Amino acid sequence: MKVNGDHYRTIWPDPTDSRVIRIIDQRRLPHCLAEVELRTVDDFAQAIKEMYVRGAGLIGATAAFGIYSATLAAPAANPWPFIQKAAATLLATRPTAGNLAWAVGRQLKNLEGHATVHAMRQASFSLACAIADEDAEFCRRIGEHGLDLLREISRRKGGAPLNILTHCNAGWLAFVDYGSATAPIYAAHRAGIPVHVWVDETRPWLQGARLTAWELAGEGVPHTLISDNSGGHLMQQGAVDLVIVGTDRTTRCGDVANKIGTYLKALAAYDNNVPFYVALPSSTFDWQICDGLRQIPIEERSGDELRYAHGLTDGGQEGRVLICPANTPTLNHGFDVTPARLITGLISERGIMRADETDILRLYPEHKPR
Amino acid sequence: MKVNGDHYRTIWPDPTDSRVIRIIDQRRLPHCLAEVELRTVDDFAQAIKEMYVRGAGLIGATAAFGIYSATLAAPAANPWPFIQKAAATLLATRPTAGNLAWAVGRQLKNLEGHATVHAMRQASFSLACAIADEDAEFCRRIGEHGLDLLREISRRKGGAPLNILTHCNAGWLAFVDYGSATAPIYAAHRAGIPVHVWVDETRPWLQGARLTAWELAGEGVPHTLISDNSGGHLMQQGAVDLVIVGTDRTTRCGDVANKIGTYLKALAAYDNNVPFYVALPSSTFDWQICDGLRQIPIEERSGDELRYAHGLTDGGQEGRVLICPANTPTLNHGFDVTPARLITGLISERGIMRADETDILRLYPEHKPR
Repeated sequence: MKVNGDHYRTIWPDPTDSRVIRIIDQRRLPHCLAEVELRTVDDFAQAIKEMYVRGAGLIGATAAFGIYSATLAAPAANPWPFIQKAAATLLATRPTAGNLAWAVGRQLKNLEGHATVHAMRQASFSLACAIADEDAEFCRRIGEHGLDLLREISRRKGGAPLNILTHCNAGWLAFVDYGSATAPIYAAHRAGIPVHVWVDETRPWLQGARLTAWELAGEGVPHTLISDNSGGHLMQQGAVDLVIVGTDRTTRCGDVANKIGTYLKALAAYDNNVPFYVALPSSTFDWQICDGLRQIPIEERSGDELRYAHGLTDGGQEGRVLICPANTPTLNHGFDVTPARLITGLISERGIMRADETDILRLYPEHKPR
Repeated sequence: MKVNGDHYRTIWPDPTDSRVIRIIDQRRLPHCLAEVELRTVDDFAQAIKEMYVRGAGLIGATAAFGIYSATLAAPAANPWPFIQKAAATLLATRPTAGNLAWAVGRQLKNLEGHATVHAMRQASFSLACAIADEDAEFCRRIGEHGLDLLREISRRKGGAPLNILTHCNAGWLAFVDYGSATAPIYAAHRAGIPVHVWVDETRPWLQGARLTAWELAGEGVPHTLISDNSGGHLMQQGAVDLVIVGTDRTTRCGDVANKIGTYLKALAAYDNNVPFYVALPSSTFDWQICDGLRQIPIEERSGDELRYAHGLTDGGQEGRVLICPANTPTLNHGFDVTPARLITGLISERGIMRADETDILRLYPEHKPR
């Protein structure tokens, strides 16, 4: 998508040296657009764990390139132990992220068919690029399916601007391009359907305030930043036509683990008869599990994310402020689970489905129990 | 309550000059305990509007002393126009706050019986002190009634620590002393009942992170700071035994306007069968209205409260950081309305009641329609 008029993806091989993978350091947005080079497995693991990159699709694509970086460093005589250790390192970075295991698993399976390190390098680079391209393409298709939905709701509103609430950032910055929750919004905006986005700031990491607001501004989509506390009130007042969020892991029964606070917005949408949609490329499905509340591990992150707010000081420097007494105990879970019963529908690259096993398997029959 | 072992109230007449009223500047907590002197009506109005002081009871007490300050400055020959203008100025500061109109109205009615400015000064000073004392006393009684409730829930838990979630600050800093939501917690803690408080940080103004965490630490009550997004997840995990919040305006039918985000926590409590209590001195009742969603005006505050986070820089200075793109549009409502259907009970100075008109009027029969 566009940054100051230039087209960007969130991850790409360096055009002059494909052993180097380039990313945007999202910790520094919106105040500084800084690119970072990733070379070693540790670089990739740190970039995922410390959230230089984050978001379902982008974590997957980054991990895929991370396995490629492992093949570059693996000893030719006996590459597997090195690669498997790299896979374990990458898998340990973000426990909730479904795409992480999906991408690493796909790479490992792909490598099994190759006898030499040289062949492994070529194969894993090709597959990482394919995973990135597929992620972008799947998000583009989510936009097409979502566009039909938004067009219909807009028609019922008589053409008045559609007010869409989103939580966290399931935008192009969370994927390779387009985004999941934002793809229908960008598609509608380009199709001339008037849209306006309520952007949850998304404490503690402020993905909404820092990333979604910046993304939407870059594409010229009207939006308003609100506190995470505001969405329920806006729904009570009739100021939200629908909610679209992303997901970091989706069960075969339609439960969704997404950024913490998503469940609260789903409750409010349900209480106010506001449609609540979750957009996802199928790579976020965890086909092994049904009960999200019991079966999805929830990541716990550093309490400093809560104790400090990061941003731009009045002097124009990047900095942080301590917002509570210095020794305050904290608990910082990264995700919560929204049960399928609160979800109006899932929007994937194959279309729109209800959040239940039967309708999910209608679109993904290859995952039916044999 | 205690600050470094000393007993404080939130507002008090200067011991050497009762024309001067002293407050704690809550904008600077927890990093700096600064007292501020209020002398003129404009001082009082600014202190309320800019949130040097905030919270249901404290806004009322401050406004009461503000009317007293108006009598000090009013011309002896014709004091009423000056006092009425002062009343209007004070009333305009915080539109949602029920205690504001209550305290100002009580002062004006009290002044009507006095013929001279001299008598008005004495009467309004006495009443302001009485309103402050009554606020503290009512909160103390809320603590007693709430203690019975917490003791019972603790007994059912077999003495394991009670996990209580609260939103915003309905602590002693929001009243003259004790607090409303915190009064039962302090009472239980002193009675030896093990309690632990989940403190919502309460964006954008961070009343929880800045004030509630500081208060609870001062009294030695175990607590953990969480993001506003976290409460639903904790309730799903069974980590919350009950919720207690305050209210800025309560209708005769039991709808409650409290800090924005309260409604979301009430929805989550309802969805997880967690008891949801609202603690209030009866001064927050607006006996004229029933339907909170339609009839309580919701204050809109500056978008800069969202765009910036305030705190202590790494250099140890009080400062702020911009957390979003500089020109991001914002919407910053201060309150939302929690409908009575989501509230387990109200705890007032007269006892515990259901959040419905019949049960409220059982404890407040003087407000039955004649």
